[in-house]
Amino acid sequence: MTLHLDPDRLFPADPATRDIARGLYAAVSQLPIISPHGHVDPGLLVHDTPFVNPAELFIRYDHYVSRLMHAAGVSLDELGIPQKGGDAAVTAPREVWRTFCEHWYLYAGTASGYWLQNTFAHLFGIDEQPGAENADRLYDRIQAALETEAFRPRALSDRFGIEVLATTDDPMDDLAEHERLALDPAFTGRVLPTFRPDSYLNPAAAGWEHNVARLAEWSGSAVSSYRGYIDALAARRGHFIEHGAVSADHGVLQPLAVDLDESEASALFERALGGTASAEENQIFAGHMLLEMARMSVDDGLVMTVHAGVVRNHHTPTFTRFGTDTGHDIPTTTHFVDPLRPLLEKYGDRPDFHLVLFAVDETVYSREIAPLAGFYPSVYIGAPWWFLDAPDAVQRFRAATTETAGFYRSSGFIDDTRAFLSIPARHDMSRRLDAAFLARLVREGRVALATAERIAVDLVDTMPRKVFKL
Amino acid sequence: MTLHLDPDRLFPADPATRDIARGLYAAVSQLPIISPHGHVDPGLLVHDTPFVNPAELFIRYDHYVSRLMHAAGVSLDELGIPQKGGDAAVTAPREVWRTFCEHWYLYAGTASGYWLQNTFAHLFGIDEQPGAENADRLYDRIQAALETEAFRPRALSDRFGIEVLATTDDPMDDLAEHERLALDPAFTGRVLPTFRPDSYLNPAAAGWEHNVARLAEWSGSAVSSYRGYIDALAARRGHFIEHGAVSADHGVLQPLAVDLDESEASALFERALGGTASAEENQIFAGHMLLEMARMSVDDGLVMTVHAGVVRNHHTPTFTRFGTDTGHDIPTTTHFVDPLRPLLEKYGDRPDFHLVLFAVDETVYSREIAPLAGFYPSVYIGAPWWFLDAPDAVQRFRAATTETAGFYRSSGFIDDTRAFLSIPARHDMSRRLDAAFLARLVREGRVALATAERIAVDLVDTMPRKVFKL
Amino acid sequence: MTLHLDPDRLFPADPATRDIARGLYAAVSQLPIISPHGHVDPGLLVHDTPFVNPAELFIRYDHYVSRLMHAAGVSLDELGIPQKGGDAAVTAPREVWRTFCEHWYLYAGTASGYWLQNTFAHLFGIDEQPGAENADRLYDRIQAALETEAFRPRALSDRFGIEVLATTDDPMDDLAEHERLALDPAFTGRVLPTFRPDSYLNPAAAGWEHNVARLAEWSGSAVSSYRGYIDALAARRGHFIEHGAVSADHGVLQPLAVDLDESEASALFERALGGTASAEENQIFAGHMLLEMARMSVDDGLVMTVHAGVVRNHHTPTFTRFGTDTGHDIPTTTHFVDPLRPLLEKYGDRPDFHLVLFAVDETVYSREIAPLAGFYPSVYIGAPWWFLDAPDAVQRFRAATTETAGFYRSSGFIDDTRAFLSIPARHDMSRRLDAAFLARLVREGRVALATAERIAVDLVDTMPRKVFKL
Repeated sequence: MTLHLDPDRLFPADPATRDIARGLYAAVSQLPIISPHGHVDPGLLVHDTPFVNPAELFIRYDHYVSRLMHAAGVSLDELGIPQKGGDAAVTAPREVWRTFCEHWYLYAGTASGYWLQNTFAHLFGIDEQPGAENADRLYDRIQAALETEAFRPRALSDRFGIEVLATTDDPMDDLAEHERLALDPAFTGRVLPTFRPDSYLNPAAAGWEHNVARLAEWSGSAVSSYRGYIDALAARRGHFIEHGAVSADHGVLQPLAVDLDESEASALFERALGGTASAEENQIFAGHMLLEMARMSVDDGLVMTVHAGVVRNHHTPTFTRFGTDTGHDIPTTTHFVDPLRPLLEKYGDRPDFHLVLFAVDETVYSREIAPLAGFYPSVYIGAPWWFLDAPDAVQRFRAATTETAGFYRSSGFIDDTRAFLSIPARHDMSRRLDAAFLARLVREGRVALATAERIAVDLVDTMPRKVFKL
Repeated sequence: MTLHLDPDRLFPADPATRDIARGLYAAVSQLPIISPHGHVDPGLLVHDTPFVNPAELFIRYDHYVSRLMHAAGVSLDELGIPQKGGDAAVTAPREVWRTFCEHWYLYAGTASGYWLQNTFAHLFGIDEQPGAENADRLYDRIQAALETEAFRPRALSDRFGIEVLATTDDPMDDLAEHERLALDPAFTGRVLPTFRPDSYLNPAAAGWEHNVARLAEWSGSAVSSYRGYIDALAARRGHFIEHGAVSADHGVLQPLAVDLDESEASALFERALGGTASAEENQIFAGHMLLEMARMSVDDGLVMTVHAGVVRNHHTPTFTRFGTDTGHDIPTTTHFVDPLRPLLEKYGDRPDFHLVLFAVDETVYSREIAPLAGFYPSVYIGAPWWFLDAPDAVQRFRAATTETAGFYRSSGFIDDTRAFLSIPARHDMSRRLDAAFLARLVREGRVALATAERIAVDLVDTMPRKVFKL
Repeated sequence: MTLHLDPDRLFPADPATRDIARGLYAAVSQLPIISPHGHVDPGLLVHDTPFVNPAELFIRYDHYVSRLMHAAGVSLDELGIPQKGGDAAVTAPREVWRTFCEHWYLYAGTASGYWLQNTFAHLFGIDEQPGAENADRLYDRIQAALETEAFRPRALSDRFGIEVLATTDDPMDDLAEHERLALDPAFTGRVLPTFRPDSYLNPAAAGWEHNVARLAEWSGSAVSSYRGYIDALAARRGHFIEHGAVSADHGVLQPLAVDLDESEASALFERALGGTASAEENQIFAGHMLLEMARMSVDDGLVMTVHAGVVRNHHTPTFTRFGTDTGHDIPTTTHFVDPLRPLLEKYGDRPDFHLVLFAVDETVYSREIAPLAGFYPSVYIGAPWWFLDAPDAVQRFRAATTETAGFYRSSGFIDDTRAFLSIPARHDMSRRLDAAFLARLVREGRVALATAERIAVDLVDTMPRKVFKL
């Protein structure tokens, strides 16, 4: 079966609307890629090492892909996923790739399937659907390409037109790789670190105590000093800003913000360190720290992004063997209106404070996020995230938020990916979908064509620069 | 850039479906407007005073409009919003209007933008998009129109074809303005008061004690007499009915109904008055009073409307300075099935009792409201409200409720607006959207064309008259 | 007004997409019907008794139909619904039918209306919309048909092409009717029982104590023996499996699973029997029994289906007079991620354990069910159920689940009906809707046409056989 990329893919069915979408897309399809939040390893571009093989590239690190095969009964071992803490190379990459090709039918209609199809066709010139029969041939074809100069990470970065690429980093990271990239005259892109302090803020997170100790050691303060802890966090943010960071990212189960005074916070901090805090006290302290992070963002200008509502590592046996990011993070109901209120009461009307809200519970789009972003100068609507970063979900997102908050309260597209090769397919998808959405509004007489043309460009270019202060 | 109203606006893209929609719309586009719930000031029609200027007319009182500029960093002061309790005229209306025109791009794709476009084009003959360059010219054009006889409120009411207009009123309102309108032979419309007793029922509401005292004073009973309080409320409802009221409206955070006997209710009432009731007790008392209001509706025939699920005045600093209705009322999750059950157990099967349910959490449409309305003779599905009163949200509403409850359990369109000039645009939007929805069902072979033609008329004419007993 | 079945009904409006849908549908429209979960009475096929009259056939037992007339003010008595426990024939069937015809307008746009239209036209050759004028004529026409051999249940089963039909049965049912059908050489279909033990598992269910006693009596163990109770349940499952059962069905308010050890469970069991268990303890015990049922499914291979989230018998006065299934079961918010976790931790990665999740709160589709089914080998996405088994809701379902979990984690269509005559219309609806959904993906360049053709067949044929182990 052939693999053919329709040049009109994702555009509306109606021919008149499709024509409009085609025109809107043409105006943005070649604009540079701005990727203000994602999970690419900066070392990839520092070392510019070739990708090893199709299994490492497409399967091992992409839990969007491995999970569907797991659901079909393939074990993660068979897919070359390393045991927890392990880092061995995939020992039988060709077999892993074959397994994937045999299961290619699972991906029809999925977001991953869409991106993979685009990548196979555009980057590797593949024109047949993967399957048991052609698995080896495709493997060889991709492998051969990966060994060429044109497929080295930096060459691909240029080819993709990536202007800005943000990574996600541990607060204690020395950011040496970012520094090397910034100083390397042969590398022209901007690779920015992102401050991601979850495991430094929430006493219930794995490694919190250890992380508090690392902060104390680095700053020279006593481990048990709440003031020292706060100052060290602020200083680490400063270190990130010196290395180009524009945002701090916060992954929380629920976006709870709690306003404590310093003595209350300090007491909870000590109880948490002493191991005597209750689960509820830890939650309150974490909520306080979310508010503190907002306060620091008001001070130092880092954009605050909040990714809320995911139950991580749902299947403990898999987590125990294989660790995090192995396909069983599951969304749950999310609420912003009450939990986030103390934060918004204090900082929501500061226009220089940018707070970008992401959720995987799509009921909050029309009910909470759009109404909040339609009033608070600080609040921006995060792009559809994770499971919702898919064609139909994106159309639901735009329909659910635009009528309340318009186009100018949204973040622009965020790929949020560790799959480097999928970046152009993801941004292209977003541009096509926004063109399709706008084309419908034009066809329905709701937005003038000239207005739609301006919005299409603003969503790709103006908004991410503005929201992420680029 | 031109502002052009497409005669086919909001109709489906597919030409065959569009043709059907056009025909359905033609049959209803000129029918009189029935507006059984809204917030227009009756004094507007009593005094027939000309509108003062574009800033007062379009911005100052319309928090749908001001909130998006606030989100873009414009302070409410700059928009002429008066401080809490204040009532001064906008001092620099031309500057406010200019600010609005400069921010016109924010409204693309929003419901407010759609209504404003319609109003500008239809009422004022404006054919260019507002912007910094033409702000003064547009101001002058609108201002000149407002000074003519044709733009006086009564003339507009006639021009709009408003047959019935319900206002929303305090239970102690003497309704003198409604009486004047009813007695005025020069005024041919019907302007009906609506009984809105929230702050008389919920001890946690601002002014509750004061309102209870006003009721007692008016009725001559003791302030602390629960029986006197209940009787006075019933008597005030009677006063409203004498002045043409057909409904009583209830705004609640959660639609909790509690069935207490008189001694329990009386005890809670006294504790609330004495200031010793807990927050939970106040909530229970308010839930009891919601049930009491249903009981009174069964007795006196007033249609009971419930608007549930909005966290009012989310940003306290703005509320403190500017008061209510300033753009930061935010929807929250809403539940009807369990909370409302005691009320439905008692009165849900009384066909003469009409209970119309409104929500801004759209998950309840298919999950709760449509199934309830599909069984209980008393329950009607309220039209999409507030943030959901917008083209795509209305289509989601119809799709979410019709398959379960059909067309004949829904209230018909409700504009719920204080923006008098937007009334025809809102009703026209609704008629177009219902035509579009029905056209799709016809095109998909689900509803016969003749049936769709009947339904289109019934939604505009039969249903609001029936549901609101007009 | 004519009743005309459009051969293109439910297909997309756009002509090019419609063409694709037509082709996809043609490939599946004649495939046999597999109905792995439903509520048809097996006695219908054992005795092959003619249907009595249109009122018994279409109204009395179909609470989807009677509820909308009830909402319009018609009492259940007038519709011939028997009082609780009663079983008398409808005394005035022609009058009931007339009432229905007079209220036919209520069903426009509803799922029931769609199925009825199909049944009237296809089975009875009716070409006019029911109404007051033609009620008697239609009654006579249907009545005459029902008296022919061609309308006997077995003849209809053949005509419908029903290959497999699962019923829903009490665990103590002797399954004699299923046995008779299996042994009857004149009957060629497969009619399978389904184990439905809710009222044997949940101490709060009506009749639980009685059912526990029946189990004990049958198995010869002591009523108060927890071990005997568990063994008896396992033995009854064995009895069902011997009679062809492939699944056990569980109706729960919330899908809570609790992992107790035997001594804890036994203690709760005794407290429940003794009437001293709290409501919470009963809930915990029921949660434990859900986990036990999963354990048994792992052992004996019965597919486990869970139908969650319905508040049964919402209107107590109606329940008291008329009993269950009388139109006032109302959906409520449903959560799977945390409540079901203990079950998935234990058994979620067993590929031979099949767990099919159904919900009537459609927010769980994209948020919970699809992500769970996209990882756990045991979890399958149940088809849209009850109120959501309708054209637009089905499209929302596919759009909400496919991008995350693809097509191969879904159960295939489940009619879940007691209305025997509606079975072909329901399956035909599903096939049309999946053709329409796939056609859109093809037209949007997301799925190749050849892939869509394979998926269309797999959804009708491969998936139900696989998921239900047929």
